[in-house]
Amino acid sequence: MSETTKRIISGLLLGGGVVVALYFFDAFASIHVFILVLLFSLMGVEEFYRLTDRGLDGRPVRGIGFFFTVLLITAFYLEYLTGYDSSSLPDWLAEWLVLYQKIHNPIVPILALFLIVASSYSMVYRPLDGTSYTITTTIVGPIYAAVPLGIVILILGLGEGIFLFVYLALATIMTDVGAYFVGRWFGKHNAGLKVSPKKTYEGYIGGIIFANLFVQTYLYFWLEINPATMSVFVPGWTESVLLTFVISCISVFGDLVESALKRDARIKDSASMIPGHGGILDLVDAMLFTFPVGYYYFYVRAMIG
Amino acid sequence: MSETTKRIISGLLLGGGVVVALYFFDAFASIHVFILVLLFSLMGVEEFYRLTDRGLDGRPVRGIGFFFTVLLITAFYLEYLTGYDSSSLPDWLAEWLVLYQKIHNPIVPILALFLIVASSYSMVYRPLDGTSYTITTTIVGPIYAAVPLGIVILILGLGEGIFLFVYLALATIMTDVGAYFVGRWFGKHNAGLKVSPKKTYEGYIGGIIFANLFVQTYLYFWLEINPATMSVFVPGWTESVLLTFVISCISVFGDLVESALKRDARIKDSASMIPGHGGILDLVDAMLFTFPVGYYYFYVRAMIG
Repeated sequence: MSETTKRIISGLLLGGGVVVALYFFDAFASIHVFILVLLFSLMGVEEFYRLTDRGLDGRPVRGIGFFFTVLLITAFYLEYLTGYDSSSLPDWLAEWLVLYQKIHNPIVPILALFLIVASSYSMVYRPLDGTSYTITTTIVGPIYAAVPLGIVILILGLGEGIFLFVYLALATIMTDVGAYFVGRWFGKHNAGLKVSPKKTYEGYIGGIIFANLFVQTYLYFWLEINPATMSVFVPGWTESVLLTFVISCISVFGDLVESALKRDARIKDSASMIPGHGGILDLVDAMLFTFPVGYYYFYVRAMIG
Repeated sequence: MSETTKRIISGLLLGGGVVVALYFFDAFASIHVFILVLLFSLMGVEEFYRLTDRGLDGRPVRGIGFFFTVLLITAFYLEYLTGYDSSSLPDWLAEWLVLYQKIHNPIVPILALFLIVASSYSMVYRPLDGTSYTITTTIVGPIYAAVPLGIVILILGLGEGIFLFVYLALATIMTDVGAYFVGRWFGKHNAGLKVSPKKTYEGYIGGIIFANLFVQTYLYFWLEINPATMSVFVPGWTESVLLTFVISCISVFGDLVESALKRDARIKDSASMIPGHGGILDLVDAMLFTFPVGYYYFYVRAMIG
């Protein structure tokens, strides 16, 4: 089976899994969404830690990073649950939520504690040479690979969560798919980026156009099928084209940054978990950038509008 | 003048400045507190970036780090202002605050944007070797050196802000002062830490006892002079002794972690801004750890109590 075929098949299977998870999204206080996001986040952080391992020159403190990844994703899940009908939750969870809402904004204390614990551990147990590398890579792992996936839970918790999640995911994935095929078939003019020397201008432009075609078609049919979609979350056509353009560009940067991390680590794929796609980071690299931007765009839009 | 004399005099001058700032703390929407905290934060981040500069092997993107330091500290200041009497604020500021309160929890979007901008910049303009070092040190600078100072604004915004700020500052500083003098005069048994080989057990124990004596005396006289202090913020005696003990220990770790960063950078003082104290990080290193822990301790205590 060629790489491209593998890529398409495993992409479809993964996409199918996500669709099933979304279909039952509201059930069981969305606990399965939490578990899925947590698994993806841990795998992402693990890969980031593998990419940034420099042995004696410094390497992340893995266990502490995983622990705080769990805390961070749990905080996003609890944040999501505050918008959930609490009468349908188990009592113990509802009580936890009341406590959680009193201590609003738990990301700052989690990060502060993370820094104290990780740096103290590094200072005591790791060689002094490489201290700053060890501390900084440990902290940034979950900020890079887990926080943006935690934001997926918040996207789903918005008034029209599934619509917005698919909108942002399509804009991101279709940029990549479009760039891949257009670049292969029509690519002539090298974009000259040191991190990805083979990428062409045709590919990037193709990706942006392809994403726009897909997203606007999706928007059109979604509104046809769901005319009751809350208007505060529905972008107008001009707005949607501009937004998709911005998401596409950010998506390209997310992809390139992950490539740069791999080049620095002298590895081709971040791992080989997913046939044809490499590791989890190869799969979600662009989404790590586009989900936060997209979420806050729609969040602020709904708040102001 | 000996180093010790310099240390004492400049310490007293700085302390005096802080006391004056605290005395007028409530005036002008506390804008001078914001400016002071911002200056300290920028100096701290600048020093962290100097400590973690490895030239061709990677170095932080300074300008982007400073920009996001300003955003982070501004977010803490706005958070503080939400508890302020808005009728005494200028109109334009009150309007900004209404917007800010709608978009609650701005630390996550600021961090997400910080990561996108810093890593994209590094990918385009910096050598690929050292990408992970450049990205991670840039991001962690403000998390290490600015966020804990931003939390000072939140401490001051608590019901008994000045009382709690002085309580935590005393517990931190007196641990250091006690350890320094007790270690010098009575130090015999080496604690055997690779990062600070000269430190003795006597010094650490002395610091913890010294801090406790100072803090409990302060607590006693504060309550004598201000019997109306809101009880939800006043720890009982046993609680206060335990809390001071914990703050003292964390304070020691904060001090040692900064030493480890300097060892890794092969520098003695983080800078020589303050006579006898070295740089700003040498001065506040322990507080970077104790302020966040102390703030959330009192915050959660008041919420639950």
